[in-house]
Amino acid sequence: MAETTARRSPSGAERKRDAERTRERILDAALVEFGEHGFAGARVGAIARRAGVNQQLISYYFDGKEGLYRALTERWRALSAGVNQPDAALADVITAFADVSQAQRHWVRLLVWQALEGDQAEGEQQFRQAMVDDLRQRQAAGEIAPDLDPAFLMLLLFGATLAPTLLAHFAADFTGLAADSPEFRERYADQLRKVVARLS
Amino acid sequence: MAETTARRSPSGAERKRDAERTRERILDAALVEFGEHGFAGARVGAIARRAGVNQQLISYYFDGKEGLYRALTERWRALSAGVNQPDAALADVITAFADVSQAQRHWVRLLVWQALEGDQAEGEQQFRQAMVDDLRQRQAAGEIAPDLDPAFLMLLLFGATLAPTLLAHFAADFTGLAADSPEFRERYADQLRKVVARLS
Repeated sequence: MAETTARRSPSGAERKRDAERTRERILDAALVEFGEHGFAGARVGAIARRAGVNQQLISYYFDGKEGLYRALTERWRALSAGVNQPDAALADVITAFADVSQAQRHWVRLLVWQALEGDQAEGEQQFRQAMVDDLRQRQAAGEIAPDLDPAFLMLLLFGATLAPTLLAHFAADFTGLAADSPEFRERYADQLRKVVARLS
Repeated sequence: MAETTARRSPSGAERKRDAERTRERILDAALVEFGEHGFAGARVGAIARRAGVNQQLISYYFDGKEGLYRALTERWRALSAGVNQPDAALADVITAFADVSQAQRHWVRLLVWQALEGDQAEGEQQFRQAMVDDLRQRQAAGEIAPDLDPAFLMLLLFGATLAPTLLAHFAADFTGLAADSPEFRERYADQLRKVVARLS
């Protein structure tokens, strides 16, 4: 009977999938809350309400606010590593970062909060130095001119990549387009490509 | 007698100078308070305490929080117009902006708050469009290649210019130097010059 089927206890695989979905829903809610209020201002209760779960479940899955933050950082690093493909052309990597940062506005807001609040997530330095090493390898391979300094250039490119999100009001005033409109994104990517092409 | 001299009532010029000094002290305090807490979070009482003046004096000089904000915006525009000299080379203008934004960290923080809070100061759009027009004139004069779009390039350059302040934690991780150290500033200016030189 249908009712029996509906009431049967879920298989191990289903339980695992459900747990994974809940975990992701909590992380999505946490990203929005952290992005809106910063780490200090974020409330675990608000995250639970936004995710539609019991607050105790957040403690169970993530061991509270710090654990959530660490899990979000790990998720961002995985996303970022997926974008930063050593075999792709630098212009493709840079424009992909610009796209990701526009799609992940809450993450960029969180980065700004970190800068405003002087916070530093664990292991960030190591992660960021590895990105400079990647750029150094591109320089060795001839993608970047020898007179440019990868460490400083990296910062310059990050500033340029995050500008449409960090400075959305500047973007709109300069161009007359909303920074998150498809036309803006396409034209900005085009400019990034042209500038990157001039770095070799 | 010395005491008589000390007690004589101040001349009109002295009173004006004192008033000007007090006004500037209030503005300096307001910039720090707005930079730390954003417009919404800033408290006029805290600004008065920081400036060492009576809160009523702020109402008298500036007509409250909105008036303070407008006065700060005007002061920033005057500073910005001083940097954006049409006769200077673009590389000089860009590196001067980078210097000003590092010296005026509280102002840059305030810009970020505007972005986070979705605020927009009055007249900003017009002011920013005028900056794009300046860049367009530089393009017409041959300082910028014809295939670059001044409106989008302006945003890209702003992102690069503000990066050491907006992303101070990135700057330190990438380069191993504090973003406000003289060595960092000099080397970053050098990179900005090299990138700008490639835009023509």
